[in-house]
Amino acid sequence: MSGTVTWQLAPDQQRVAWVTLENEGKFNAMSRTMWRDLQSAFEQIGARTDVRVVVVQGKGGHFCSGGDISEYPSFRFDTEKLRNFHEVEVWCALQSLLACDVPVIAGIEGNCMGAGLEIACCCDLRLAGATARFGAPIARLGFPMAPREAALVAKGVGTAVARAMLLAAEVLDAPALHAQGFLTQVVHDGHCGEQARAMAVRISTLSPQATRLNKQALRRLDALLGPHSQALWVESVQNQDTFLYADSAEHREGIAAFLEKRSPHF
Amino acid sequence: MSGTVTWQLAPDQQRVAWVTLENEGKFNAMSRTMWRDLQSAFEQIGARTDVRVVVVQGKGGHFCSGGDISEYPSFRFDTEKLRNFHEVEVWCALQSLLACDVPVIAGIEGNCMGAGLEIACCCDLRLAGATARFGAPIARLGFPMAPREAALVAKGVGTAVARAMLLAAEVLDAPALHAQGFLTQVVHDGHCGEQARAMAVRISTLSPQATRLNKQALRRLDALLGPHSQALWVESVQNQDTFLYADSAEHREGIAAFLEKRSPHF
Amino acid sequence: MSGTVTWQLAPDQQRVAWVTLENEGKFNAMSRTMWRDLQSAFEQIGARTDVRVVVVQGKGGHFCSGGDISEYPSFRFDTEKLRNFHEVEVWCALQSLLACDVPVIAGIEGNCMGAGLEIACCCDLRLAGATARFGAPIARLGFPMAPREAALVAKGVGTAVARAMLLAAEVLDAPALHAQGFLTQVVHDGHCGEQARAMAVRISTLSPQATRLNKQALRRLDALLGPHSQALWVESVQNQDTFLYADSAEHREGIAAFLEKRSPHF
Repeated sequence: MSGTVTWQLAPDQQRVAWVTLENEGKFNAMSRTMWRDLQSAFEQIGARTDVRVVVVQGKGGHFCSGGDISEYPSFRFDTEKLRNFHEVEVWCALQSLLACDVPVIAGIEGNCMGAGLEIACCCDLRLAGATARFGAPIARLGFPMAPREAALVAKGVGTAVARAMLLAAEVLDAPALHAQGFLTQVVHDGHCGEQARAMAVRISTLSPQATRLNKQALRRLDALLGPHSQALWVESVQNQDTFLYADSAEHREGIAAFLEKRSPHF
Repeated sequence: MSGTVTWQLAPDQQRVAWVTLENEGKFNAMSRTMWRDLQSAFEQIGARTDVRVVVVQGKGGHFCSGGDISEYPSFRFDTEKLRNFHEVEVWCALQSLLACDVPVIAGIEGNCMGAGLEIACCCDLRLAGATARFGAPIARLGFPMAPREAALVAKGVGTAVARAMLLAAEVLDAPALHAQGFLTQVVHDGHCGEQARAMAVRISTLSPQATRLNKQALRRLDALLGPHSQALWVESVQNQDTFLYADSAEHREGIAAFLEKRSPHF
Repeated sequence: MSGTVTWQLAPDQQRVAWVTLENEGKFNAMSRTMWRDLQSAFEQIGARTDVRVVVVQGKGGHFCSGGDISEYPSFRFDTEKLRNFHEVEVWCALQSLLACDVPVIAGIEGNCMGAGLEIACCCDLRLAGATARFGAPIARLGFPMAPREAALVAKGVGTAVARAMLLAAEVLDAPALHAQGFLTQVVHDGHCGEQARAMAVRISTLSPQATRLNKQALRRLDALLGPHSQALWVESVQNQDTFLYADSAEHREGIAAFLEKRSPHF
């Protein structure tokens, strides 16, 4: 067990909640504990009527480098455990962000990969340092992105960029994702915190009611445009074949290679 | 009652109809009269078989700065009146643009905010002056964008930009919306009229039948991708809670503050 | 009968299949033979378990300039033949690309118009030379894009760009479509082949299973977001009026004018 997700109100600005991803030495890769922490943080924040805006950031110059791969051998090779991980642990945490009724700002420095990209996709506004890097090169690890998460990413960065990330393991920089419309603003490296704070303060003066209703309308729209509430999608996701790859050679090889710091051979 | 929307055929080019938004001293903010005029203009143009292309522009260096807020106290604080305003008056006018079977060009100078942005989203092609400004900072006014209109804007400018506009009251410039794909072309300030005219003349030489069928196919596609024809969306929009915010303190405060030229306090 | 679509494995890289569009003197315009060849090529490639990535390119400095208009008089003026052409011949060929379970790279030099644009929209990754040109100016030919194909293009390049192409016959360059997110990369003219090869080699080292499952998830998502599997869309496409324009004056005029190398008069 390593890593934490914590949150606190800004001491001098009680309307702004700061959520921090932290997993030292792993660029804040999401462990299972961190997914639980993240969900818990957003549920607590959601119950606070005084919070008007949330900022999500990573500790130590990176946002989040993906999943904590050191934990993967303990559950990813069993179909039911893998399904539970993606459909319950990860998805419920991401849903807690999507369900948040106040604006959520991502302040993105350094690596924003895989799970980090998914978390960023659940935010409303995204600031990034100029050299921040975005991708989901998990095909190098021998496994695909879970369908709901792929849908979330495709909606966030656009289908073309999602295909480049997932099918060619491309890593894109902040200016590219700004041009694409994914990033609200690109700032100097190391200035995400202060810029996110400035944006949060601006937002905290806006009508909370207007914001809440706008968020609800946009969320409802995404649910209709996207798969989340559609029977067909649910059916396809519940399809018994989705996670059958759990106990496969490529899956094991990809993760083993990463852990052994060598190139995988597929 | 102030403001008008008028239309005429170009004297030297009878295939091109020009629609002009005008509300002097208010940057052409849309009054209720103007919404009626706009719908009427497009219904009349739609009945003309000789018109091959329409240009929508604002009078006096601005496109449209939003709704005419001076009228708001007379109807916005009553749920049924507010619903009728958005669902009938505004939506039917916007639908008359969407239903237009010939290409509609927006020539956008200066402010393109709120209602102006919605009108621009209903056009097929959008030219803008280099310093034109786009946004929907109505959270400063204490009320949200109506759900259908938010859907229209989110489809037009993309979900990420829509969130920046609606949740953070961000105002974007023409180059940003060009990069995003929303604007067909950015031109020198003051040149939208001539560039729109040149584009209209080019379009007027194309096959009207091809254009009409292409517009119908694209409209049908948007209806399927989007909410307009989906039972679930209709249900969610007809939800009795949608406009319950009408008689709320924040709503009243936001509009009062605007009218009294002071900052709102939420 | 002119033109061919051929495919082969790269001699030194058996995991990469190269598909070549060729119609000499016509910038590789798609003849009916070529549509059949294209479908056949992808069906054969789909049956090969050793192929990990496909590159589609045109012969001789162009990708594909559209349909082979010299064939049009032989079938386009009869509604049933026209419907069969679009709904069976063209659509099944495009579906064979969309159904391909390995990544498909388009290497685009020169003209990428009409049918060429549709083929590019079915690819996962798109490289283009700096002076490549994109559009679908068929309104000059007096006929619309078929609805399914218009949906494909609108999804690929975005609704705003699709409207510019279809309603104003605009032709866009590679940098514009890169900004829009449609192109994965813009390269120096004449270098698409080598860049596509380098990308293909990179992809061929990734997990084929991850790639296949990612492609399936993205395809399922597009089907749900898009029209392909939706009853309403199917109904609207099967509508008896869709291809009634076949035997119309404008349709005949547009094609005649092209063949006679004169401007059409609508």
